Amino acid sequence: MSNFFTDNSDLRFYFEKAIPWAELANWTERGFRLPDGFTTAEEAIEFYTDVANTFGTFCAKEVAPIAAKVDRQGLKLVNGEVVVPPEMATCFKKLQQLQVYGLCVPRELGGLNCPLMLNNIFIEMMARADVSLMSHFGFHGGIAMVLLLYSIHEGTTGFNPATGEITTTRFAKEIAEIISGDAWGSMDITEPDAGSDMAALRAKGEQLPNGSWVVSGQKVFITSGHGKYHVVIARTEPTKNADDPLAGLKGLSLFLVPAYQDNHGVRTRYATVDRLEEKLGHHGSATASVIFDQTPAQLLGKRGDGFKNMLMMMNNARIGVGFESLGLCEAAFRLASDYAEGRRSMGKPIAQHELIADMLDEMQTDIVAIRALAMYAGYHEEMANKLDLARRFQNDSDTLAKKRRDNEIKSHQRKARAATPLLKYFASERAVSMARQCVQIHGGVGYTKEYGAEKLLRDAMVMPIYEGTSQIQALMATKDALAYIVQHPQAFVRNLTQTKWRTLSTRDPLERRVLKIQTLSLSAQQHVVSKTALNRVRQITHLPLTQWPTALSGGWDPRRDFAFALLHAERLTQLMTDALVSKVLWEQVQQFPERREWLDRFLERAEHRSRWLHDVILHTGDRILDRLKPSSAALSEQAGSTR
Amino acid sequence: MSNFFTDNSDLRFYFEKAIPWAELANWTERGFRLPDGFTTAEEAIEFYTDVANTFGTFCAKEVAPIAAKVDRQGLKLVNGEVVVPPEMATCFKKLQQLQVYGLCVPRELGGLNCPLMLNNIFIEMMARADVSLMSHFGFHGGIAMVLLLYSIHEGTTGFNPATGEITTTRFAKEIAEIISGDAWGSMDITEPDAGSDMAALRAKGEQLPNGSWVVSGQKVFITSGHGKYHVVIARTEPTKNADDPLAGLKGLSLFLVPAYQDNHGVRTRYATVDRLEEKLGHHGSATASVIFDQTPAQLLGKRGDGFKNMLMMMNNARIGVGFESLGLCEAAFRLASDYAEGRRSMGKPIAQHELIADMLDEMQTDIVAIRALAMYAGYHEEMANKLDLARRFQNDSDTLAKKRRDNEIKSHQRKARAATPLLKYFASERAVSMARQCVQIHGGVGYTKEYGAEKLLRDAMVMPIYEGTSQIQALMATKDALAYIVQHPQAFVRNLTQTKWRTLSTRDPLERRVLKIQTLSLSAQQHVVSKTALNRVRQITHLPLTQWPTALSGGWDPRRDFAFALLHAERLTQLMTDALVSKVLWEQVQQFPERREWLDRFLERAEHRSRWLHDVILHTGDRILDRLKPSSAALSEQAGSTR
Repeated sequence: MSNFFTDNSDLRFYFEKAIPWAELANWTERGFRLPDGFTTAEEAIEFYTDVANTFGTFCAKEVAPIAAKVDRQGLKLVNGEVVVPPEMATCFKKLQQLQVYGLCVPRELGGLNCPLMLNNIFIEMMARADVSLMSHFGFHGGIAMVLLLYSIHEGTTGFNPATGEITTTRFAKEIAEIISGDAWGSMDITEPDAGSDMAALRAKGEQLPNGSWVVSGQKVFITSGHGKYHVVIARTEPTKNADDPLAGLKGLSLFLVPAYQDNHGVRTRYATVDRLEEKLGHHGSATASVIFDQTPAQLLGKRGDGFKNMLMMMNNARIGVGFESLGLCEAAFRLASDYAEGRRSMGKPIAQHELIADMLDEMQTDIVAIRALAMYAGYHEEMANKLDLARRFQNDSDTLAKKRRDNEIKSHQRKARAATPLLKYFASERAVSMARQCVQIHGGVGYTKEYGAEKLLRDAMVMPIYEGTSQIQALMATKDALAYIVQHPQAFVRNLTQTKWRTLSTRDPLERRVLKIQTLSLSAQQHVVSKTALNRVRQITHLPLTQWPTALSGGWDPRRDFAFALLHAERLTQLMTDALVSKVLWEQVQQFPERREWLDRFLERAEHRSRWLHDVILHTGDRILDRLKPSSAALSEQAGSTR
Repeated sequence: MSNFFTDNSDLRFYFEKAIPWAELANWTERGFRLPDGFTTAEEAIEFYTDVANTFGTFCAKEVAPIAAKVDRQGLKLVNGEVVVPPEMATCFKKLQQLQVYGLCVPRELGGLNCPLMLNNIFIEMMARADVSLMSHFGFHGGIAMVLLLYSIHEGTTGFNPATGEITTTRFAKEIAEIISGDAWGSMDITEPDAGSDMAALRAKGEQLPNGSWVVSGQKVFITSGHGKYHVVIARTEPTKNADDPLAGLKGLSLFLVPAYQDNHGVRTRYATVDRLEEKLGHHGSATASVIFDQTPAQLLGKRGDGFKNMLMMMNNARIGVGFESLGLCEAAFRLASDYAEGRRSMGKPIAQHELIADMLDEMQTDIVAIRALAMYAGYHEEMANKLDLARRFQNDSDTLAKKRRDNEIKSHQRKARAATPLLKYFASERAVSMARQCVQIHGGVGYTKEYGAEKLLRDAMVMPIYEGTSQIQALMATKDALAYIVQHPQAFVRNLTQTKWRTLSTRDPLERRVLKIQTLSLSAQQHVVSKTALNRVRQITHLPLTQWPTALSGGWDPRRDFAFALLHAERLTQLMTDALVSKVLWEQVQQFPERREWLDRFLERAEHRSRWLHDVILHTGDRILDRLKPSSAALSEQAGSTR
């Protein structure tokens, strides 16, 4: 029996041993006080297991077999509506019957009330079958959750404090419609001239004299943008300072914009899908251009908080791409491995040729690494959200307990925030390179459309682009790491010293190797900070000494001051990823000694790679920065002339 | 004026300064003694320059503009004949008018009698426009040259010793037909169950009682296999030792097999094109399956020499793929760079964002590196061939001069042979990664079909597969390096010692860095040899000491003894490439001080990368080899049972 859940021993290790299901179940079931809920963690976990099992079979038997057909046929735009291949329509009808669109939606709103962690596992399994169908699937339940969370945050959702039950919520109707499978939504952010640069967004939200809102403008590259419920970011206040490239972020607001209304089989459209992108791959997922023209909209959250509110969702979405990439890696590894076991050359299966064995070994090890990082990020993100939610429905009177919980939330948030860009970066980049290895292992037949290898590569290529490119992830991870050091210099130095000391004192050779990578990562971070500070000092040497303190503490200009850090951002991100993965695997080893082998395998490659990245960061970069300087000089001049 | 020759300053550096045109012209013009030939090198070089200039414009104005259309339409198989897009047909008609199909074919056979180096430059320029059209173009003149060379080697071409002119040649008719543009050919090697493993080939060549030959069997993945003149490798003697996976190489022969004959517009077919592969990219190039069934054939060279004769062509073909990959890299870099200069984000062109600047800098540096390696390999390959040819038409009576020339030929051959797999590996791998960087720099639009970035990636993916996969190149380069050390242990140790000593004694910091990389490469090679020898010693420890000498000197089993080297073959190849590229660039610096900057830029990345590769080779590998051992143990047992 094909089953993407049971056939995956590393995934089952997490499911059966490493994921703290009882803790997640407790918060999801709101302390097991819900009227129709489970009464114990065991009951809940049994249910999660059943659901995972069913979905694992579904992915293997209903999704994987249609992937090639959907890829070949793709989606078409006919008279402003998107037409999908019949196999895809059937597949989504079956998903409707499985009632999984509301997997994580609270039971009282019609959902299955499962932890987000189970959704992450769904993502991995379905992405292994077809990442584009997974991506579209995600915009069903995902948008229902987004609407619920925005409503909770803006205070339009009511709880019963005794049971934690939701009593009212602003978007109950929309959520019900989505989880029934009749509608889905999208996040409409990108515009023709604003991709990663959101300060340049131009779509407009206007309030009419009667207080209602309308949205106008074009949004492009909208995944599943042919759906009904669009969460649109639009400008509600003009940009004040044209010279500040980030000023534009301040005047944005979020809206819920229904694109159409069906009435007795007749569709009235409020927003127009004017084109579908013709893409390299990802053919089961629509990438739409949507035009809004005075389209009625509902403000989500506070006016002007659009950028902040959008960021709130982003971490979870990026963890989702991490799990999608993981699923794609699984598919690539298994396809490559099966082919290499079956194909004989020079008297043996090519899987036993040293070069191929080395590639397969690396792929498998990295899948274990990505899953470790994904589970870590997913757990902390979910706990941060669940505990934050609990603050709302539990009126904690005990200030000590409240403080403890606040600290716990902060700790989970910090870990999730640190891990997410590393996960998105590592998993998506590796999905591309693993798909490429899969093609290469197939040789000539890998280049043809017949064996599925080239499709994986085409599908993988979007992973390091959507939900923030790899470069954006690297910049975020780097800036966060730097900011932490600048804000907590003593804690950082203490951490570095302790790590070095423990490297010398530990008796476990495996721990020593883990600590060495931590040291390399921390020392590279330290170097980047020193260079940044040094550059800053250089820039003020033309000032009289008395003005230095003011100049040093004054507003840093990220365009100029962080140049060295930004140049090395991708390498630093790779190094921090090696450090975090080895740390997470080492923590697993404490509890599950059978994980030593995986850590050992990961370290074997990571320790040399880390040393290399460290050396490149420490010894290169000035030449390119010098070349970029003219513009920086022009900038200083400009700043000088306005003084 | 668009011109892929004049707009490329690094290419022009070679053309105007670094390529020893006078030397190449001298041998190509056979000492300027040909009746209709040029009388001086200057005349010849002026002609080469004109031709390069014309072709540079042609590639920019006639090939590049049709690339997207040809990619979209592709080739179709209709009633057993291949139909090409009209734009492609027109393009090849124009190439016919330019008379470039016979670019390197001797003048007396109707060609332009240019050096192969000019053909290499053609390859780069046309591949920059569209690599699949280049690939097809190459199977015109390329096959004419192949037929001429086989004929020279088998002794069916006659020379006038006074002028070096060709007086007769076996395939004069076929060559004339090909260079007129009316026909082209292909190399038919791969079969459904034999890709890299040529010992497993099964197509059969049979001699009929009347002495003539027929060929039967299926050949697949034949590039431009819809042409007329097929050079087919087929088995003429049965495999004797079924246990030896290489035994099958001995019974192969080469044939020239015409696939059809046109007579007054009516085509009679002798071989059937039964399918075209549907490929990820490379859509202007047919990848055909061809069936021969008792098809009349002519034996090329000696019966049983098929594998050896095929290898003779392979070096040049692989250098060709190096230049194709170089052209593709140029296209990817320029597309990415143009986009990054034009696209603004956060107040400046993204080309000035540090991460993008770093990527573009790396792409540009590697293009310079690839071109240096390609020119080096191309020069030595051509000189080896030209001098070898000269031996045939110049009856050298002076034995001293003869010996000197023989040594020169050997030296050129050795250099070409060492550089070729490194070039094929490096250029084709980098074509893939550069195309990927180009997509990534484009962000979302790079994933769509509109901007051309995704097409480059699709086209690039075949480069590390055809003409021997990257893995095959790595194995060849590694085995050659090892064999050299085993055969010349003293010379190797002397070289290593001298390199270390010169590292300490040189006053030029740039030379010191170059030498350090040489040392890392040599020391990794030394390590691999020691481990290989050690493994070998370990395997005989169960034998009585008296049997050791015999066992050690006895036939090495590459499947068992070279395991450690094979495991690290790709890394060793990368390291040897860094070493050779830096050496070649350093040699340029001696003559052209303006090249220091490029060498410096290359070293900046190569020196840390080399250290890393060296460390991984020295410190890892045993775990995977241990895992592979069961099969090796089974093999020893098997060997034992036959004793």
